[in-house]
Amino acid sequence: MTSEMPPAASLQAEVNRLRLELQSLRATQTEEPIEIGNYILARLKQLNVKQIFGVPGDFNLGFLDLVEADPAIGWVGNCNELNAAYAADGYARVNETRIGVVLTTFGVGELSAMNGIAGAFSEMVPVLHLVGVPSTAQQRSKALLHHTLGDGRYDAYVKAAANVTITQGIIVDAENAGATIDRVLIECITKARPAYLSIPTNLVYAKIPSERLENPLSHNQPPNDVEAEKAVLEEIVQLVDRASANDSVVILVDVCAVRHDARSEVNELARNTGFPVYAAPMGKTVVPEDYERYGGIYIGSISDPTVKAKVEAAELILSVGCVKSDFNTGNFTYSIPASKTVEFHSDQTKVRHAVFPGVGMKQLIPRLTAMLEPFGYKNREITAPQPFRVFLPHEDSETITQDWLWPRVSQFFRPKDVIVAETGTSNFGLIDVPLPSSSIFVSQLLWGSIGWATGCTLGAAFAARERDLGRTILFTGDGSIQLTVQELSSMVRHGLTPIVFVLNNNGYEIERCIRGWEAGYNDIMNWEWTSLLRTLGDVDGSRSKSYRVRTKKELSVLLDDEAFAAAGKIQLVEIVMRMHDAPRALRVQAEMGQEENVYGY
Amino acid sequence: MTSEMPPAASLQAEVNRLRLELQSLRATQTEEPIEIGNYILARLKQLNVKQIFGVPGDFNLGFLDLVEADPAIGWVGNCNELNAAYAADGYARVNETRIGVVLTTFGVGELSAMNGIAGAFSEMVPVLHLVGVPSTAQQRSKALLHHTLGDGRYDAYVKAAANVTITQGIIVDAENAGATIDRVLIECITKARPAYLSIPTNLVYAKIPSERLENPLSHNQPPNDVEAEKAVLEEIVQLVDRASANDSVVILVDVCAVRHDARSEVNELARNTGFPVYAAPMGKTVVPEDYERYGGIYIGSISDPTVKAKVEAAELILSVGCVKSDFNTGNFTYSIPASKTVEFHSDQTKVRHAVFPGVGMKQLIPRLTAMLEPFGYKNREITAPQPFRVFLPHEDSETITQDWLWPRVSQFFRPKDVIVAETGTSNFGLIDVPLPSSSIFVSQLLWGSIGWATGCTLGAAFAARERDLGRTILFTGDGSIQLTVQELSSMVRHGLTPIVFVLNNNGYEIERCIRGWEAGYNDIMNWEWTSLLRTLGDVDGSRSKSYRVRTKKELSVLLDDEAFAAAGKIQLVEIVMRMHDAPRALRVQAEMGQEENVYGY
Repeated sequence: MTSEMPPAASLQAEVNRLRLELQSLRATQTEEPIEIGNYILARLKQLNVKQIFGVPGDFNLGFLDLVEADPAIGWVGNCNELNAAYAADGYARVNETRIGVVLTTFGVGELSAMNGIAGAFSEMVPVLHLVGVPSTAQQRSKALLHHTLGDGRYDAYVKAAANVTITQGIIVDAENAGATIDRVLIECITKARPAYLSIPTNLVYAKIPSERLENPLSHNQPPNDVEAEKAVLEEIVQLVDRASANDSVVILVDVCAVRHDARSEVNELARNTGFPVYAAPMGKTVVPEDYERYGGIYIGSISDPTVKAKVEAAELILSVGCVKSDFNTGNFTYSIPASKTVEFHSDQTKVRHAVFPGVGMKQLIPRLTAMLEPFGYKNREITAPQPFRVFLPHEDSETITQDWLWPRVSQFFRPKDVIVAETGTSNFGLIDVPLPSSSIFVSQLLWGSIGWATGCTLGAAFAARERDLGRTILFTGDGSIQLTVQELSSMVRHGLTPIVFVLNNNGYEIERCIRGWEAGYNDIMNWEWTSLLRTLGDVDGSRSKSYRVRTKKELSVLLDDEAFAAAGKIQLVEIVMRMHDAPRALRVQAEMGQEENVYGY
Repeated sequence: MTSEMPPAASLQAEVNRLRLELQSLRATQTEEPIEIGNYILARLKQLNVKQIFGVPGDFNLGFLDLVEADPAIGWVGNCNELNAAYAADGYARVNETRIGVVLTTFGVGELSAMNGIAGAFSEMVPVLHLVGVPSTAQQRSKALLHHTLGDGRYDAYVKAAANVTITQGIIVDAENAGATIDRVLIECITKARPAYLSIPTNLVYAKIPSERLENPLSHNQPPNDVEAEKAVLEEIVQLVDRASANDSVVILVDVCAVRHDARSEVNELARNTGFPVYAAPMGKTVVPEDYERYGGIYIGSISDPTVKAKVEAAELILSVGCVKSDFNTGNFTYSIPASKTVEFHSDQTKVRHAVFPGVGMKQLIPRLTAMLEPFGYKNREITAPQPFRVFLPHEDSETITQDWLWPRVSQFFRPKDVIVAETGTSNFGLIDVPLPSSSIFVSQLLWGSIGWATGCTLGAAFAARERDLGRTILFTGDGSIQLTVQELSSMVRHGLTPIVFVLNNNGYEIERCIRGWEAGYNDIMNWEWTSLLRTLGDVDGSRSKSYRVRTKKELSVLLDDEAFAAAGKIQLVEIVMRMHDAPRALRVQAEMGQEENVYGY
């Protein structure tokens, strides 16, 4: 872990940005012009993008020729656009500081991807949505082309996209193309939100100056406001000083710490002070779950009672990158009043009730860490929290239960594994068990779109391979996987080797917990799960392996099998479970939802 | 076929509409109040809807309880929302005068369906998109719920939907619910476009007066403007009178004749006058293709030369319900100038260059038919066009070619079959062969979203079963079916028995014709096609049958097999074909596209 972030880096980012603006104003032709399509690819390569997800369509084929010709960037070629958007999202999540890119075609393709893009917005994942659109001449004449709404409204799709993207860039001529592309990418990476960029067929090969490319885009935030930051630091130090010793200051980490690239900064803060650390569900694995001063997941009333007591008894909570959504807060049951809380965000800091705009955590936290060290464990006695551990329950029956499953698979995980949890029983189940150090937990608790995890796993597996991480392991349900199942095919095609656990419990279990316990609408079709990989691409059976386990013993034997655990090829495991069995956290969440009449009538 | 439409029907519609408006103003509580959810279902049943497509999600489960309790309306339960929207679209297309309904949940569900809804807009298919949304209290407080964008923008999704639906209804209280629901449904059915209706969880069971339900909604257009209609009739009669005899007046039918419920009227016009009839591709089967005065498909320069000569030599073209999109007009190569054309639309008529708003075809055509009979074949000699026939080409090779395939399968079709063509080689191939009387050809030439046909087939098969039509037969490609393949599972689940032909030609052939003839991005993964149905739900193999044919002989033997042709269970036929083989119409279309530099750079 690196220590402090030198202010020079932010200044350099500002310098680069100003240089770009100057060049944009000059707009002179240089000696080495570049095609707009290749300009985009050059920028993506600078941002270390190695894969583009998407589906070919007649308005993006020209751009795809450039992608295909580029040895440094790969084309994934998904089975459909929603899956592609999910994959780009997963790629960005696991890469942490890189963006995901999804390429679609005008109308039919881009609209299919919209739910995936909206999910990236909701969960702050930087995804670039590139759309191939008809030529500028066709757009001007409002030609009645296929993929149009038949009424000449060529702006309808970008208008729709504006609701779920942070910015939109419409390339309409060569002159402004470079500036438009850069603006869109900078917004995407600095705000960690999806952005929309359309490129018309006739401009993909139009040449523009390449000079701008000399200044790389930076995802550094602008420098903090010096005076405001000083005030914030002083206030926080006072609050820490005033707090009585022994466990009275705790750190609560959440997902935005990772989205805004402050993972190392928050870990540094924790290690140098020794303050006890807890995580919100979405912030799981931001701090390694085997860290000796880490106490587990705080999720309001759903929390383990010890965790709940410790967090809520603290005099001061340093809350880093929090997202206070229903599922992330135990249905809004946080008992940590603002008067006891400092909230660190990407672009502001909130000290108790006071908001300080322009003071972002990435630069603030290292300075704070230095100032807080005197109050840390080296000078004060600070009790470490009870470690986050689970034990395998003893159950007489061989039936695989939710209570047994999650502690059991937690023994299977290894450092550096990438663990993807579908919204539903998988997500709620995995919250309750600790994951190994350097593992990455990927879930979508805020957006919560079922089917996301399968597409996400494709992108996550690419990123894991590129970053030399461990295995990619997906937990999903028989209901959820049906939405996006074809993407297993892309995993086979690209030689990725995730382990896919399919919890077969006869339908939408999370919905049953919410409403319709016995309702037919929560039933689904049972599939022949173990033949899925073969049917969807491994036709000679050499590239995959599938298993069906019905008992604790069968699952344990499989998990202990070295060849299985080595994950040398893609593997699917159907875990036969009982309908109406749900993990603890989901049961509590559902009960609270009903008590509050959220779904009542 | 019925003859004339009495003006009383439109007046009755107007009366009903006014009565509703009155009731809405009164808004008094009646003695038999009804839950808003059941009010919606009552309206849908009045519109003869028998199936609702969609996916359960936590904000629509309360409404689903009502659906499940209603014996007259079925819940399909699709594998994902895009497929559900496609299915609702197919259901409406084959029912012709009924709407399709798709139910999704807030955010994640509704956005996933958007491409399907947009396609229904583009192709003028009346689909109601019902969305279950959070309670009005949660919306007001901007609660940070799952499925939100995390920033309190509860209106983001309806704003996006507004770009692809004809109207949006947001139920916010019981008082206006009935009027809102009726307004949305009337727009949907009279304009034949998709409409959006959201219902918050807390209002599904809120009671409202049921009196409005006594007045059924009507999809009749308002009465034509009497004076304008008179002028139109006189002008057309003059034009017909002036045209020299013998084939100098032709009728060209297109898709809007069906969408706006004028199929019988246009057939009446054709039969009572004896004018030669041709169809645009999207209007295929509006007039039976074995009708003795029907000459086939007019598609500009792509047309059969005889058809092209006949249509373009006509002195007057009565063009009914035309959509002049690229793929429907041979890439805009219609050679029928406005000066020779009368265009009949749902809400206006265009006589040569003059537009007459407020004169719709549904009421106009029967009156015109009566006035044109004196100029018809009973009094003048009118040569029937050369019948639309194809012959099986003789080819030495046993390879199944596009040139051979379509004439061969045309021998397999029977009256009342519903034939669904995926955008791509299937669509272009089927354009060129005649279909039997009373068959229904379903394609999506304007929107052209690959994957649509599979979802559509599910809805089409439901509608065909309800209407007691013949077999539902899908033609799709190995690339296209991958986008939406899971919906085969719903077909198995509901005991539907379509015949699914999968043309396996190693990738996106239509894209190869446009660009990337040898490009890797047009490749796809090969699947084990014949195990798809089993894997996706027919686990004991009793409910489906699959075949793989590689030669002309194998396919012919299968098509001639009575058990196969009887379609007693769902069947999938993989047809092995060569890459780079495309049907005639697609080859010409692609060449013209390149000539015009539409995709060029």
